[in-house]
Amino acid sequence: MDITGKQIINGTYVAEGKDSFNSFNVSLDKTIDTMFFEATDEEIDYAVNSAFFAFQTYHNTSHPERSQFLRAIAGEIEALGDVLLETASSETGLGLERLRGERQRTMNQLNAFAKYIDDGSWVKPIIDPADPDRKPLPKPDLRQMQIPLGPIGVFGSSNFPLAFSVAGGDTAAALAAGCPVVFKAHPAHPITCEMVATAILKAIEKTKMPAGVFSLIQGKSNRVGGSLVKHPLIKAIAFTGSYRGGKALFDLAAQRPEPIPVYAEMGSVNPVIVLSALIKEKGEATAKQFAGSITLGAGQFCTNPGLIVLKEGSETNTFLQHLAAELSATQPMTLLTRDISKSYLDGIQKQRSVKGVTPLTAEPKEKVTSHLLSVKASDALKNHAVLEEVFGPSSVAVISNSMEELKSFCATLEGQLTATLLGTEEELLEATELIDVLVSKVGRLIINGFPTGVEVSPAMVHGGPFPATTDSRSTSVGITAIYRFTRPVCFQNFPQALLPRELRG
Amino acid sequence: MDITGKQIINGTYVAEGKDSFNSFNVSLDKTIDTMFFEATDEEIDYAVNSAFFAFQTYHNTSHPERSQFLRAIAGEIEALGDVLLETASSETGLGLERLRGERQRTMNQLNAFAKYIDDGSWVKPIIDPADPDRKPLPKPDLRQMQIPLGPIGVFGSSNFPLAFSVAGGDTAAALAAGCPVVFKAHPAHPITCEMVATAILKAIEKTKMPAGVFSLIQGKSNRVGGSLVKHPLIKAIAFTGSYRGGKALFDLAAQRPEPIPVYAEMGSVNPVIVLSALIKEKGEATAKQFAGSITLGAGQFCTNPGLIVLKEGSETNTFLQHLAAELSATQPMTLLTRDISKSYLDGIQKQRSVKGVTPLTAEPKEKVTSHLLSVKASDALKNHAVLEEVFGPSSVAVISNSMEELKSFCATLEGQLTATLLGTEEELLEATELIDVLVSKVGRLIINGFPTGVEVSPAMVHGGPFPATTDSRSTSVGITAIYRFTRPVCFQNFPQALLPRELRG
Repeated sequence: MDITGKQIINGTYVAEGKDSFNSFNVSLDKTIDTMFFEATDEEIDYAVNSAFFAFQTYHNTSHPERSQFLRAIAGEIEALGDVLLETASSETGLGLERLRGERQRTMNQLNAFAKYIDDGSWVKPIIDPADPDRKPLPKPDLRQMQIPLGPIGVFGSSNFPLAFSVAGGDTAAALAAGCPVVFKAHPAHPITCEMVATAILKAIEKTKMPAGVFSLIQGKSNRVGGSLVKHPLIKAIAFTGSYRGGKALFDLAAQRPEPIPVYAEMGSVNPVIVLSALIKEKGEATAKQFAGSITLGAGQFCTNPGLIVLKEGSETNTFLQHLAAELSATQPMTLLTRDISKSYLDGIQKQRSVKGVTPLTAEPKEKVTSHLLSVKASDALKNHAVLEEVFGPSSVAVISNSMEELKSFCATLEGQLTATLLGTEEELLEATELIDVLVSKVGRLIINGFPTGVEVSPAMVHGGPFPATTDSRSTSVGITAIYRFTRPVCFQNFPQALLPRELRG
Repeated sequence: MDITGKQIINGTYVAEGKDSFNSFNVSLDKTIDTMFFEATDEEIDYAVNSAFFAFQTYHNTSHPERSQFLRAIAGEIEALGDVLLETASSETGLGLERLRGERQRTMNQLNAFAKYIDDGSWVKPIIDPADPDRKPLPKPDLRQMQIPLGPIGVFGSSNFPLAFSVAGGDTAAALAAGCPVVFKAHPAHPITCEMVATAILKAIEKTKMPAGVFSLIQGKSNRVGGSLVKHPLIKAIAFTGSYRGGKALFDLAAQRPEPIPVYAEMGSVNPVIVLSALIKEKGEATAKQFAGSITLGAGQFCTNPGLIVLKEGSETNTFLQHLAAELSATQPMTLLTRDISKSYLDGIQKQRSVKGVTPLTAEPKEKVTSHLLSVKASDALKNHAVLEEVFGPSSVAVISNSMEELKSFCATLEGQLTATLLGTEEELLEATELIDVLVSKVGRLIINGFPTGVEVSPAMVHGGPFPATTDSRSTSVGITAIYRFTRPVCFQNFPQALLPRELRG
């Protein structure tokens, strides 16, 4: 298909701006010819206004009409064929099989939301009937349901070019809720973004949705995202990416004349606490599994375990030697972008230079390889830099001199998407206080498993206290993500004919 | 009972500060001797730290233990006897019967939360069982529930010295959720606050709750509230009061190194749209009811109808004459504080001076009386001052020259707690577009009723888009208010013995 490099707004391709950037083939380490135009402020205004006008009809579409639209998007993404996977692979360096799975997940998400909204009960109707005989005053008829917030600005992540991008979880949740989406394309995979946007465009036409219900804007500069967040008709923001990016958007949104909710998933170090008896029993097998989790997808998952917390002892030393050997044996990897590779290598160097840090893998060279470092808990607390997330296939082992120190160390942790506890049955039963501390820090706590691999299921929480996210009261994976884009309204004393259909009867 | 004027922190009375203020008898318009000490920053730190330590045990109390605690608070408030009502009446100018009803409502709220949490299902358990045979990977066991956020800072309102104050809805919701509360007393009724706090203290002792689960801090300066919001161990804020106060706390909370949710209910003008045929049919009766709603509680309800939107015509003129006559016939009223009376009289003068405004009631004198003004929609849009909330028993009539102008005017309204539509059956059936506009602006939409009188029932929404509140996704009245103070956590692959009891089985 032809890639235009333009914004796709209200069903049309536009590019009035002068600034542009190129896509980049990260696998071949070379620039792709296709040029992309940065959205101008006028174009962003056009996109949001189109979304606002589309909202007037879109929020009144029936639930089956909307689920048909979501299913059509899934169908059109599949219809793009393998060229979508090949394109995404060249732009991100991710393998074809991984991307095939991710495409399936993206379609599953769209279909799951379609199924969830189909019968309309998702609006959570509550009906309190009138009681005209109540004393001292009659009780009025009160009925509540969830309604959509309005146009939503969505920012995709670099590490999931399909499942957390143009037609990813956030877009699916917002569209399912009845909210139009203005999507800010990730500059690390702009071709993939345009391809998926054309699929949405086809679905809009086929299911006769208003053209403004989805727009795609391109941009590499902070201005584009900032203008989107500041637009008065945007009613909420969803974002997956770095702390720096997410926090900047949160601050902009809070400073608006009308502040709006920001759901930013900003990653975390996902501590894994490894208890001693377990690694005494099966340290080698655990190290093997652990290395698999650290290097999965080149360590580029939000739930990648970047911190290992252990108690000192010979079994810990042996375990870390096994783990270092496993990691050293992995092949060099391609990260999502040149910048991410550079940040990774710089980050490792920075951590290695922290006082008290012992590198357990070889000095980093030009290529991205997996790394392991170790540091005493007391030293780590003195230099927080060693505890900051380094995006990529590395981990830092923090060694405590006692269970008390280990618990205290965990109590100082910031908010996390996940924490994991590995131990024997006996050890776990004695760890209830530690578990209590960990629960207070996370969105998800895993026992004897690994944090990578986020199930799309009703009980999943992909979220957590700040700075893992800017709103711990929700999740960005799973069906309940839809309620990030709704609010309750109460209809008092409405005649049946005027009630929304979900509240009649 | 003896009033100390001190902070009540962790079960003890403390007052290390030098700054103080007096309570004021607004009915007699004179200062009460009792002196209150402004909480120092050290005292606020002590209160929040006590709350944090109490949280460690309190969040692990069983649901029946917690509901017993809430019921005990209700019992101890009743046990204070009528001296509580007399005190509140002298500090607020509200009548004894009104306060008797408000005390009952306060107790009902506490008991309703007690009943709601009793069996533990309120934590919304979700259980996704494991599937070891799933391909390509086994599915882990995932279980989700809501957990409490931690210590909450609550700010009471001046207009509900019991139901939205020390042991009011926000405190009840937070304590029910498992969150300790540090309550900032309202300086307009500090004696009432201390009395209710001692009731909570007794309930803490009787039900053996940790002493730090509730603390009361006094203060008239912004510093006290600001220090509470900025304390790093406070995890959310609930507030009922003015836009200025609520927005200032919201901004402070957003600027914290760790931003926290702020649920500020900041009032609104609660527009009432009056359609022509209805007032042609029964204008006089409607005017009588309307006057009752405007002057109820001296117009000091958050849902007081401060804006009337009508279409021009002789029936509108007649209706407004009736309404003005009704309002002019009411007696002078005592408002909650001297400052509120002054703001009210200044606000009326300011509105009367706006270009195009026609006063329909007599020039305001020293005493607080009810007022009505009218202005053309086109003039109102040119001078927003006439549309701003004046807290008290007044209303502004905005006259449109057509239904189209009326609709456009409604589309320019800011977020509101409520809107109300009065019309004949026929008129209402033709007003679906107008209803759509109004729904987008409010937390609650009333047909042929009045906004004052907020039912405490499951379908109620006392909230709405900014600037009515800082978080439209919730309500501050009703049982679901509890979820403002919780977040979901997912427990993955937990052995039964380690699961929270709500998720076992």
